[in-house]
Amino acid sequence: MANKLTSREQDYSQWYNEIVQGADLAENSGVRGCMVIKPYGYAIWEKMQAELDRMFKATGHVNAYFPLFIPKSYLSKEAAHVEGFAKECAVVTHYRLKNSEDGKSIIVDPEAKLEEELIVRPTSETIIWDTYRKWIQSYRDLPLLINQWANVVRWEMRTRLFLRTTEFLWQEGHTAHATKEEAIEETEKMIGVYAEFAQNFMAMPVIQGLKSENERFAGAEETYCIEALMQDGKSLQAGTSHFLGQNFAKAFDVKFATKEGKQEFVWATSWGVSTRLMGALIMTHSDDYGLVLPPKLAPFQVVIVPIYKGDEELVKVTEVAIKVKESLEAKGISVKYDSRNTHKPGWKFAEYELKGVPLRLALGSRDIENGTIEISRRDTLEKETYQITDIEIKVENLLEQIQDNLYKKALSFREEKTFKADSKEEFVKLIKKGGFVYAHWDGSAETEELIKQATKATIRCIPLGDKKEEGTCLFSGKPSDQRVLFAKAY
Amino acid sequence: MANKLTSREQDYSQWYNEIVQGADLAENSGVRGCMVIKPYGYAIWEKMQAELDRMFKATGHVNAYFPLFIPKSYLSKEAAHVEGFAKECAVVTHYRLKNSEDGKSIIVDPEAKLEEELIVRPTSETIIWDTYRKWIQSYRDLPLLINQWANVVRWEMRTRLFLRTTEFLWQEGHTAHATKEEAIEETEKMIGVYAEFAQNFMAMPVIQGLKSENERFAGAEETYCIEALMQDGKSLQAGTSHFLGQNFAKAFDVKFATKEGKQEFVWATSWGVSTRLMGALIMTHSDDYGLVLPPKLAPFQVVIVPIYKGDEELVKVTEVAIKVKESLEAKGISVKYDSRNTHKPGWKFAEYELKGVPLRLALGSRDIENGTIEISRRDTLEKETYQITDIEIKVENLLEQIQDNLYKKALSFREEKTFKADSKEEFVKLIKKGGFVYAHWDGSAETEELIKQATKATIRCIPLGDKKEEGTCLFSGKPSDQRVLFAKAY
Repeated sequence: MANKLTSREQDYSQWYNEIVQGADLAENSGVRGCMVIKPYGYAIWEKMQAELDRMFKATGHVNAYFPLFIPKSYLSKEAAHVEGFAKECAVVTHYRLKNSEDGKSIIVDPEAKLEEELIVRPTSETIIWDTYRKWIQSYRDLPLLINQWANVVRWEMRTRLFLRTTEFLWQEGHTAHATKEEAIEETEKMIGVYAEFAQNFMAMPVIQGLKSENERFAGAEETYCIEALMQDGKSLQAGTSHFLGQNFAKAFDVKFATKEGKQEFVWATSWGVSTRLMGALIMTHSDDYGLVLPPKLAPFQVVIVPIYKGDEELVKVTEVAIKVKESLEAKGISVKYDSRNTHKPGWKFAEYELKGVPLRLALGSRDIENGTIEISRRDTLEKETYQITDIEIKVENLLEQIQDNLYKKALSFREEKTFKADSKEEFVKLIKKGGFVYAHWDGSAETEELIKQATKATIRCIPLGDKKEEGTCLFSGKPSDQRVLFAKAY
Repeated sequence: MANKLTSREQDYSQWYNEIVQGADLAENSGVRGCMVIKPYGYAIWEKMQAELDRMFKATGHVNAYFPLFIPKSYLSKEAAHVEGFAKECAVVTHYRLKNSEDGKSIIVDPEAKLEEELIVRPTSETIIWDTYRKWIQSYRDLPLLINQWANVVRWEMRTRLFLRTTEFLWQEGHTAHATKEEAIEETEKMIGVYAEFAQNFMAMPVIQGLKSENERFAGAEETYCIEALMQDGKSLQAGTSHFLGQNFAKAFDVKFATKEGKQEFVWATSWGVSTRLMGALIMTHSDDYGLVLPPKLAPFQVVIVPIYKGDEELVKVTEVAIKVKESLEAKGISVKYDSRNTHKPGWKFAEYELKGVPLRLALGSRDIENGTIEISRRDTLEKETYQITDIEIKVENLLEQIQDNLYKKALSFREEKTFKADSKEEFVKLIKKGGFVYAHWDGSAETEELIKQATKATIRCIPLGDKKEEGTCLFSGKPSDQRVLFAKAY
């Protein structure tokens, strides 16, 4: 009955690919590096979107839409930004195809060359700040709190479904403020929103922190991030929020009149999460039997499978199953009743295990005689037979327990895999083993690079709210006043 | 107090542009032909999306996501399709920029040339049918009922905000079926969904029909459409649903095993509506004072404006206003309370008139003494003072009346502007005047082209469900068995 997946132990990366494909989440397309997000995978993304969108609106943001294309000259206006993004972008140079002279093929029409090339947006700071110049005149126009749901393109050389793809879906918030303090407050608020979403909806514990200079967004003064530990001991950056200072305001000449009538540059933030969260979700909870989904993000939370011989039994079982379905739906629980006669119950069990459906209810003739129903939990793989009376309350409780259990399980996994290193040797050994390693660092980009070369570990973040602690950098021996978080990363 | 817009009479096209910009719906961007959809405009689009998405799901469809880029060779596989789309597409030829040799600018890296150019999708039939080949093996895999929300690009030479832009947002449904009958049924079902949405939500009457061969989608066997009459007497195609026959299945070799074990090509449909609907919505209801929105699509349905002198009065008025707001929200009505002290009531009145808010409530000190509130309807511009008791019921009724009235008004406008022509002279005169003209046509593409050259009118559709009627073509004198719908069009 069980699904034949490669185990995590055997080959983690292969296990991941098999889940993504086996659970019908996504697949590679005919276009290099671009994925097709399949209906079941997209339904999970829609649930993420709906919740994030609600949270953004609850914190005062509104949605808008800016162009897909960015003129090449815009990208060049902010020096660090163009350094970061020019090397991996899709460039539109022509606007027409035509028939070849021999009529046998279709070619790019050389006469339809653009005067200025257009870049398919890798991120939208430049086109948005070019627009904000027209929208912002006075302090009365601030703050501007805008979000965009969009596709973006970064020409990645090595791609992996959801984790790193040439085109991906994301949201990007772009806000404009009258003061530095307010912009920093916004940056911190939004990383907090991401952390709350990760923990409460994805059941994924995260560490909030600041990026080191090396890992900062191209054009930011400060990058905040959330980092989550995957089951192979590697860290995954799940969301970022950038304090952009006045960099883009200066590049695009966006000034505002203060209450006192002075002209000042506007302060900016940007923040985003992407379909990469799908990869994080998969790798946080899934097991060797397939995907495991937290109930709050499952396209359907419960599946009911009838066990029957012949049409007569099916009719009887279906009658009860539909009643159960309706009583669950009245509680706001999403349910699929799978009465297909093309597949046997065992096949369906394996299918829904692979797809990570939180609860599976099996209902047969004997159950109906006894007034019972069998419930299997996807997280623990435990089966139990329940009286069918008040089944909706039991299911509701179980779904809450699963959501809760998944978070706790992921958290205790992270705790087991979190270490402190106090010597170089210990650090190297721990990093090799995998997991989060807290260690002292002298704060320099050179030492960070050195550590990366030596161990493949990077500074995931300088955690927010951690206590200061005197120490010495493990690699340079120079003084340090706080441990930072190291790990190998996606 | 009134807004100073160019009147429709004076310059219809200028009036349209002033509303789009004045009501903060959209604006041109720095990228030729690409628009920025501003938050207020995007909020209307979000309401449209939410309702359409609900309707698609209620009819059994699921969402997915396919790549932005289409390899050039894919586009060429269906002969009519490439003819229709190759002439107006954005072509990606390179994947990297680099610094120029003098270091002064950034240029396209000639070494990063793609082996095969990528087209930014103008529509996704080709990439989707290339994927469906992998998804469809047997009749058990059918039907596939998939929709995608996406951006698409068509390199238009003349663009107008919402009506015709280089990049636009849309949804595209792509379905696969085992039989011709089922595919035709799906095509007709979806044009029916669009008609229902247009009438019940946009309050916009439409005529459903078939396109003539000239106006058919490139690659379709039959195109169904909904056509709406705008206030300048021109027709606007608001949605299309295509029966694609086996054209794409043949081009991409998508076959399935029937129940009997035979291999057959799959039958296809595709259907879409876009941000063009925003243009239709604006032009159907708006007047010389600005935008008029049907309550079902208004970002907020009610605005409350306090009338006060000094902070003390404001506190008193606000107390009552908040109670009114809460009682309306409890009814599911969306409300904005605008207590900004930076603008006078008269300025706000004009602002919300321009933005088309269905109901404006004004509340002053005297109202509070009298237990009254003033309500202005945006559709009729009528003001009336109501007792504040049970105000939520009155508002709810008024919103329903407005939704209803807008539809009736648009319908009677269309009826006044719908004519029958029984001679060539009459036809020419009526077309010049503007509106829908029903006339006999011999069914040939040549005559259709001739009429277009002579009068600028095109066949908007061959209406569904109209009675057959013997007649002769006004231009060729040949026999005809049904009147078709002519108009000048957007």
